[in-house]
Amino acid sequence: MLSVNAYGAHAADEPLVPLTIDRRDVGPKDVLIDIRYCGICHSDIHHTRGEWGPAPRPAVPGHEIAGVVAAVGAEVTKYAEGDRVGVGCMVNSCRVCEYCERGDEQYCVEGNIQTYGSTDRDGTVTRGGYSQKVVVDEDFVVRIPDGLELDVAAPLLCAGITTYSPLRHWGAGPGSQVAVVGMGGLGHLAVKIAVAMGAHVTVLSQTLSKQEDGKRLGAEAYYATSDRATFKELRNRFDLIINTVSAKVDLTAFINLLKTDGAMINVGAPPEPMPVAVFPLLLQRRTFAGSCIGGIAETQEMLDFCAEHGIAAEIETIGAEQINDAWERVMKSDVRYRFVIDTTTL
Amino acid sequence: MLSVNAYGAHAADEPLVPLTIDRRDVGPKDVLIDIRYCGICHSDIHHTRGEWGPAPRPAVPGHEIAGVVAAVGAEVTKYAEGDRVGVGCMVNSCRVCEYCERGDEQYCVEGNIQTYGSTDRDGTVTRGGYSQKVVVDEDFVVRIPDGLELDVAAPLLCAGITTYSPLRHWGAGPGSQVAVVGMGGLGHLAVKIAVAMGAHVTVLSQTLSKQEDGKRLGAEAYYATSDRATFKELRNRFDLIINTVSAKVDLTAFINLLKTDGAMINVGAPPEPMPVAVFPLLLQRRTFAGSCIGGIAETQEMLDFCAEHGIAAEIETIGAEQINDAWERVMKSDVRYRFVIDTTTL
Repeated sequence: MLSVNAYGAHAADEPLVPLTIDRRDVGPKDVLIDIRYCGICHSDIHHTRGEWGPAPRPAVPGHEIAGVVAAVGAEVTKYAEGDRVGVGCMVNSCRVCEYCERGDEQYCVEGNIQTYGSTDRDGTVTRGGYSQKVVVDEDFVVRIPDGLELDVAAPLLCAGITTYSPLRHWGAGPGSQVAVVGMGGLGHLAVKIAVAMGAHVTVLSQTLSKQEDGKRLGAEAYYATSDRATFKELRNRFDLIINTVSAKVDLTAFINLLKTDGAMINVGAPPEPMPVAVFPLLLQRRTFAGSCIGGIAETQEMLDFCAEHGIAAEIETIGAEQINDAWERVMKSDVRYRFVIDTTTL
Repeated sequence: MLSVNAYGAHAADEPLVPLTIDRRDVGPKDVLIDIRYCGICHSDIHHTRGEWGPAPRPAVPGHEIAGVVAAVGAEVTKYAEGDRVGVGCMVNSCRVCEYCERGDEQYCVEGNIQTYGSTDRDGTVTRGGYSQKVVVDEDFVVRIPDGLELDVAAPLLCAGITTYSPLRHWGAGPGSQVAVVGMGGLGHLAVKIAVAMGAHVTVLSQTLSKQEDGKRLGAEAYYATSDRATFKELRNRFDLIINTVSAKVDLTAFINLLKTDGAMINVGAPPEPMPVAVFPLLLQRRTFAGSCIGGIAETQEMLDFCAEHGIAAEIETIGAEQINDAWERVMKSDVRYRFVIDTTTL
């Protein structure tokens, strides 16, 4: 067992505090990673505050992990000491179901083992990347390509793959009209990735306050959703809408912005059901769907794609003592565009 | 102009009565059809009673038309006098938009011209198949193959294509698990067609009252949705759910019956929005979508498929004087499984 510094919460209504947690010994297929950076995802807050159900305590969140391999087990073949690697939202799965077999481990029929707050297949509780080291099976570790700095790579492990996967799955590419709803941690990466895929990208944000950034990242157009004229002007415009907003939206208004056969994909999950009108779906064979991160091979593909196209997250790096404040700012969408914890400060 | 017997309603709150309507002279590209049979679709009632907005009066519904060609225009190449033909839900479209070009005339950007209650491109109001003759451009006429009787073919023109198209589009076939929600006019055809495509078919109906019929039509399983145990037992079971019910359902309960990447397709349109929970979509990349009839070429393909596989609608044939009563029975789902009007009685 390895005792490592971490940051976590002992209860849903308490702030995060410094603590130490145990990591398992490095097994034959395991990789020990010295974590260098960990992104702050909104899910960290939901989980730790018990908003998605009770969390095992102490809750140590963090699933945007970038670091360097410190040791490997005897049977590890993919990585060696010193390799630059990442870990995203999951660290295990059943490995044998049809989804695991085809590389969609996120949809494992037994449920994937999440990087924090899950009970792993050996019965231990997983704890995340707000810590200095983590031990992960090599099959759930990805390589961070040269040319991608570790700090700006970290958010790609969740925010990047969460937007890359549906863009690929629903065929964003040259000529396609893609809208990104929400210009935050996920949204700003969705814009960069969709632009790199060759799509025409429009940002749909509550206000125009981040318009300049959106254009700088490659968006051709930027509209405020607080302006009802937006929904009139953009009717039947998009092949694909990636909705990164976790709050309730007027779903039908967005669906009416889709062309025939267009798809609106939620990657954020509002806690309450949203009303959806069927006529606008039916009359143009439109789709409303959801998408959840991506498989391990696809995560590697995404990192390679980002390195090739010079895509990095826009980040604000913080030390451990700023984590609680950063969470408050995340709640207010006051970050451009992702907080990343320098884990040497833990 | 041709004056023909018909049945229609002078106001939303009045019963249908015998009347005569005018049909345009047969133009160079037109086909004059002696209507023999016309199916009764629930849409006929919604339209005529003004439930989908005010209808032009008199409203003469009917878009499941089967008959015989009585005359053709000088430039008609596809049909000749005596041919057995059908007309479905649309009789015109712009012909030049991307959707018309690819054979999806139902999604024409200018809107397709519906068989009744639409203003056609020449400015005249369309009137439907509760009548003895109709004049239709040959491009919107389909051939009823030998071996398909006209009476049992009529319902295929709407109920058949409405279920065939999403089954094809979303890949029903050998090995796939398909559920059909609702065992009515659309549902019973969805079962027959999906079975003929090679899928494993389950019917989800409010009660088990039509279970014997469902099994006879080829369904492997039949469950009552009034029994909550159904939703527990069938969790994650289906690749595709075709929902033929036009009333509000518990959408989330049905979505949870889908496998990863499964799709639930509404072909019925409940008037009010339905709440949809996003988590069940997101966690397994499930889809909720709508589908609207099918293109003309696809309608021909469907008819050929039905003839090849011996698929016919199960019908109850009525005379004109029974139409109003039949509508009341349709409202109560008291028909197995489609009323067809013998239009010689008009």
